[in-house]
Amino acid sequence: MTYTIGIDYGTDSVRALIVDTQTGEEIGTHVFYYPRWKEGKYCDPVKNQFRQHPLDYLEGLKVCIREALKKCPDGVAENVVGISVDTTGSTPVPVNREGTPLALLAGYEENPNAMFVLWKDHTAVLEADGINEFSRTWGGIDYTKFEGGVYSSEWFWAKVLHILRENKAVRKAAYSWVEHCDWMPALLTGCTKPENVVRSRCAAGHKAMWHEDFGGLPSENFLTGIDPLLSGLRERLYTDTTTSDISVGTLTEEWGSRLGLPTTVIVTAGAFDAHMGAVGGQISPGSLLKVMGTSTCDMIVSPPDEFKDTLVQGICGQVNGSIVPGMIGLEAGQSAFGDLFAWFKQLLIWPLRNIEDKDLLTSLTSPILKDLDEEAAKLSPEESGVLALDWLNGRRTPDADQTLKGAVMGLTLGSDAPRVYRSLVDAAAFGARRITERFEDNGVKIRDVIAVGGVAIKSPYVMQTVCDVMNKPIKVASELQTVALGAAIFAATAAGIYPSVEAAQKAMGSGFEKTYTPNPEAAAVYDKLYAKYLEFGGFIEKQTRK
Amino acid sequence: MTYTIGIDYGTDSVRALIVDTQTGEEIGTHVFYYPRWKEGKYCDPVKNQFRQHPLDYLEGLKVCIREALKKCPDGVAENVVGISVDTTGSTPVPVNREGTPLALLAGYEENPNAMFVLWKDHTAVLEADGINEFSRTWGGIDYTKFEGGVYSSEWFWAKVLHILRENKAVRKAAYSWVEHCDWMPALLTGCTKPENVVRSRCAAGHKAMWHEDFGGLPSENFLTGIDPLLSGLRERLYTDTTTSDISVGTLTEEWGSRLGLPTTVIVTAGAFDAHMGAVGGQISPGSLLKVMGTSTCDMIVSPPDEFKDTLVQGICGQVNGSIVPGMIGLEAGQSAFGDLFAWFKQLLIWPLRNIEDKDLLTSLTSPILKDLDEEAAKLSPEESGVLALDWLNGRRTPDADQTLKGAVMGLTLGSDAPRVYRSLVDAAAFGARRITERFEDNGVKIRDVIAVGGVAIKSPYVMQTVCDVMNKPIKVASELQTVALGAAIFAATAAGIYPSVEAAQKAMGSGFEKTYTPNPEAAAVYDKLYAKYLEFGGFIEKQTRK
Repeated sequence: MTYTIGIDYGTDSVRALIVDTQTGEEIGTHVFYYPRWKEGKYCDPVKNQFRQHPLDYLEGLKVCIREALKKCPDGVAENVVGISVDTTGSTPVPVNREGTPLALLAGYEENPNAMFVLWKDHTAVLEADGINEFSRTWGGIDYTKFEGGVYSSEWFWAKVLHILRENKAVRKAAYSWVEHCDWMPALLTGCTKPENVVRSRCAAGHKAMWHEDFGGLPSENFLTGIDPLLSGLRERLYTDTTTSDISVGTLTEEWGSRLGLPTTVIVTAGAFDAHMGAVGGQISPGSLLKVMGTSTCDMIVSPPDEFKDTLVQGICGQVNGSIVPGMIGLEAGQSAFGDLFAWFKQLLIWPLRNIEDKDLLTSLTSPILKDLDEEAAKLSPEESGVLALDWLNGRRTPDADQTLKGAVMGLTLGSDAPRVYRSLVDAAAFGARRITERFEDNGVKIRDVIAVGGVAIKSPYVMQTVCDVMNKPIKVASELQTVALGAAIFAATAAGIYPSVEAAQKAMGSGFEKTYTPNPEAAAVYDKLYAKYLEFGGFIEKQTRK
Repeated sequence: MTYTIGIDYGTDSVRALIVDTQTGEEIGTHVFYYPRWKEGKYCDPVKNQFRQHPLDYLEGLKVCIREALKKCPDGVAENVVGISVDTTGSTPVPVNREGTPLALLAGYEENPNAMFVLWKDHTAVLEADGINEFSRTWGGIDYTKFEGGVYSSEWFWAKVLHILRENKAVRKAAYSWVEHCDWMPALLTGCTKPENVVRSRCAAGHKAMWHEDFGGLPSENFLTGIDPLLSGLRERLYTDTTTSDISVGTLTEEWGSRLGLPTTVIVTAGAFDAHMGAVGGQISPGSLLKVMGTSTCDMIVSPPDEFKDTLVQGICGQVNGSIVPGMIGLEAGQSAFGDLFAWFKQLLIWPLRNIEDKDLLTSLTSPILKDLDEEAAKLSPEESGVLALDWLNGRRTPDADQTLKGAVMGLTLGSDAPRVYRSLVDAAAFGARRITERFEDNGVKIRDVIAVGGVAIKSPYVMQTVCDVMNKPIKVASELQTVALGAAIFAATAAGIYPSVEAAQKAMGSGFEKTYTPNPEAAAVYDKLYAKYLEFGGFIEKQTRK
């Protein structure tokens, strides 16, 4: 019997999942919530600034693996053969020559610009504009072409440039930059020096304009043309990238003893959570796999020969090997999905902000989303109801534009909380449909939809709405921890238990617990509402560009 | 020493105000909240159906006068010389041959269609459309011309027709219809038979298309052209109307003893609350007087000779004597003002709906609007912030359209409750400015603004915002009960204490407690935001008309 560990760094927490490599069965698991993040430290939601402290990640790694091991029978720890780590992304951090994130150095401990710039941080809107502007006009290679033709403020170069512009001290101290998903394996295997860090194909290809056709990252000319501040950084980054079925080394003595694991455990190259989740959720050619959480990541894989000359505009990229090694991985997504509902809940609990009695507070706040689901489900889709736009965190796909904002129309004095909530759920579903249509308009066939992630399992109401709006059946993966499971699958492949990710996926991947089928009447009403959603969006885009 | 009583029937409560006729000083006052209304009975906010039971009015009349008298020194009751009643409106009720509201008859007690159709009830949207459509095409007199050229679903004929279409039993039983402001004086003086009821100039002129140029109400041809259901009703209504400085009779024995007042007390013709409030708040030519409560009523008076050939389009009418006898009264208003903020509060307290501990509930809910004022006041107007439309209850002025709905744009995940609330306050102020501009565009001069009503006194933050957005100084009347005071002024005039309303107004009217002056920096930002508000409104109007 052997075991692998999938480590899944999400937005709020990190989880470890220990599985049997033969069946994918869960043996032990533990979730650790980032303490600094939970306090709202280093963040400013009004400015869309979201930063995470490396200590949240380090503390979490130790606790979640140790606690997960405690829940396993005897003999599991010594038979762990591999670890694979996924993280959110693009979530880069400035590092020194040793590869240490600046926030771990004296003098930078409380400096948000020395920390990981979380995927959903939108402080780099101006920098993304600059990159797009330069890219359209400089006359050289279009480096954005494999990233949907529009570079986003959520991505690597925009974030790096923003921090370099923002903070002189960090600018001087930052020798290089590392993605969160690359830093964790580097740390575990003792290879954190920037030149030694093995880089994820997924992060590099989707977020940093890396492509084998370009011979690596965009040229020095292109980068310094955007801003001379980027000068010289390219050669302190990387040329090669790796898929996550490859081992980058074994656990250091230090980490082995810290985690209670043998130093023979191999560690794979990292990748983004959604991409590993797609593997855990049984992605295969023809399926659109949606990871539905605070945001969504919508993915498709395709054999390269079927996908040679197609460039899908306005998505988040198409990269060989970014999801399943050997296949083109296409990525798209919504910048806010569950976050829309979390925002509404946050709005509603404003009157409770001074309650000190924690039990009372929990009893009032914890049932809100469940109750809203229940009440909203009693309403029918109506042409004259409340209609919202899902852009409260900008729009990722199609045609990334983080300056766009959310909106609501059709409000009356009778628009109560369930009605407004319903409009947000509808809007989230309309946003999902728009992505599907962009793929299909570019000839990408979508045979079926697979949903994984928290929202997919927890909210039948939301899922039925998405299903009615898309008018396609949706299969929901039965494993709540699909993402960590995907990581464990990569670890098992890299450890040589399986000859390929596909083979590991077949043996270890999650099944499906439920299939939603569209309600034709609702789908017909939603067709009309979707047209109104597009018109409303058109107006808001026009106003935003003014 | 003599005293008069102003009775002010508002949306939620009725108040009695007993004043000294020499000074207008308050001697005693009492407020009574309608018990059935408070329970939400007979209303359906989602359908915009708002009905009030006559028993709420009857019980309130007795309690509020009796309780107000209790607070007075000995000897006041016997020296009361007059009562004047104002009510909301248009708030008509179907009555039988005796003039009894149908809801007071056996079998109709719980039938919302047999009750008063409250001013803000918008169930008659289709009927208003029909009236406007017929009026524009029938080829005869334009009966809407003194009512701004657009007939509203908030007004008499639309509501009457809606109820007649809606409910067969009421249709058969309704001999005639009476406005709330006409029913109360009729009841107190024992003249409730429809043919004997003295009709308010204000209600008839602004809401029922009555005009002296027409020789009364619109012609039978016009009315039956709209719908044969209206056939014959005209002659069971009225030809003459009266201003509120006229006595309609004295208290009946029954009401005298019920209220503890002598039967020598005269009762004046009624009028709408806002119009009497304008008198209490010292309206005079050149001043725009805004009654700011759940909705607003914006009024101007002008000597008839200065105002002969001007017809202001899209307001709620211009009627000789509707405010001050002998002057043209112009009326406009916003369908929702304080109601916007009440709606938002209602939205926020949804998670508290199951709390049974009343003290806890009160402690959580009662500070909400005050706290929101405080937090919103800390934010500055920003071009990139949240922007709302104030049409959650439709739009009254300009160009009445109750099918319009509210909207919000510019939402981000950082849009917290104070920011969304601030956008609603801004929107309320933009709506106010739009009315002022409609008057000024038609050559009506506005020298200064006087504000009366609950919001004017209670929320400095809202008032400063309105002031900055309008970029005009605003004087706030010092009397919270300006409306009831206005009624008391009419009663004193009708009782012969003063030769004219103007003279009574001078002696008894409220002073001003505060003047708001515009902040030039905020005003400049608001100019830009107001342009965006108009564009947003333009889009929503276009979508609504589709």
